[in-house]
Amino acid sequence: MAGQIEPIQRMVSELARLPGIGQKTAQRLAYHIVGLPLEEVHALAAALWQGRKAIRYCERCGNFSSGEMCDVCADEQRANGQICVVRDPRDVAAMERMQDYHGLYHVLHGTLSPMDGVGPGDIRIKELIARIGTEEVTEVILATNPDIEGEATATYIARILKPMGVKCTRIAHGVPVGSDLEYADEVTLSKAMEGRREL
Amino acid sequence: MAGQIEPIQRMVSELARLPGIGQKTAQRLAYHIVGLPLEEVHALAAALWQGRKAIRYCERCGNFSSGEMCDVCADEQRANGQICVVRDPRDVAAMERMQDYHGLYHVLHGTLSPMDGVGPGDIRIKELIARIGTEEVTEVILATNPDIEGEATATYIARILKPMGVKCTRIAHGVPVGSDLEYADEVTLSKAMEGRREL
Repeated sequence: MAGQIEPIQRMVSELARLPGIGQKTAQRLAYHIVGLPLEEVHALAAALWQGRKAIRYCERCGNFSSGEMCDVCADEQRANGQICVVRDPRDVAAMERMQDYHGLYHVLHGTLSPMDGVGPGDIRIKELIARIGTEEVTEVILATNPDIEGEATATYIARILKPMGVKCTRIAHGVPVGSDLEYADEVTLSKAMEGRREL
Repeated sequence: MAGQIEPIQRMVSELARLPGIGQKTAQRLAYHIVGLPLEEVHALAAALWQGRKAIRYCERCGNFSSGEMCDVCADEQRANGQICVVRDPRDVAAMERMQDYHGLYHVLHGTLSPMDGVGPGDIRIKELIARIGTEEVTEVILATNPDIEGEATATYIARILKPMGVKCTRIAHGVPVGSDLEYADEVTLSKAMEGRREL
């Protein structure tokens, strides 16, 4: 763009590649960054680069980790027989925010999606099956997303694990707490009715 | 936050320091960045850090520059006697986007603001006066923002330069093109009336 020198242009174009950051926002950010003291920009750039380099995946569950094992797997108290299966590491973070689940995780790093060519061999299903053999597993909680791929993946995994004698459960579908019935879609409402419990 | 390892936490907290980036957005960006290939993250971090390091200010006009002189000052065709005075380099970029101004700039790096302790000695006014002495200047266009500080700064500079025999002009105030009269504030409308021209 006219009037913008190359270093700023490059900053803008790199920032604009991030999700949800448009050209205008990227420009605003670039001008802000250019006005920051050198050490603050260094801290930002280092946090991104060093942070990205430091990220590994837990060898057991596939969660983000800075070492061989993630914090959850390293905590022996958490090997209580439960494994919660999720699509990706950010789902682990969401679950942990709840502070209500005390078992282990298994991160699939994707969900089955024949349309996109993602088959059972492309996600960490065989690693999950291997864990059933080596760990004391009493329950596998299938917590993939409540969408078509997530449902298909949960069903697929349950079909493999149940013959192995493992109890498989699926997280409940229903109306979100704090939401308004009026705005709930029909499928959610029908799931909520189906899953009703006696008080 | 629970479930988030240190490198991601640091990424989130650094990103959240940027203007307009809240905790949620920072988290979304961090997870995106963590999932990117190493080389893409390197390109981003390098653009920020190298870009920030490369930024200098033009020795003549104070605009962003990668060398001693900015692109505008280096272009001999642009020394047409006009100097457009703006508050900061991003205003130069805005002016250049217009592609309609062919003179030079002078970036003040601030505006007079007694309340914030910014006096004439704190912004690049004496550098502007020095330019009047050494360059062929026929017109100084005061294009500081149409707010209290911008107006005060324009008036202050005009009062110094006019006795030196320099023609000083102020950009027009009025209703923005494409806007709706109904939503224009009274001051803008009265300025628009005051500055009306015969058709």
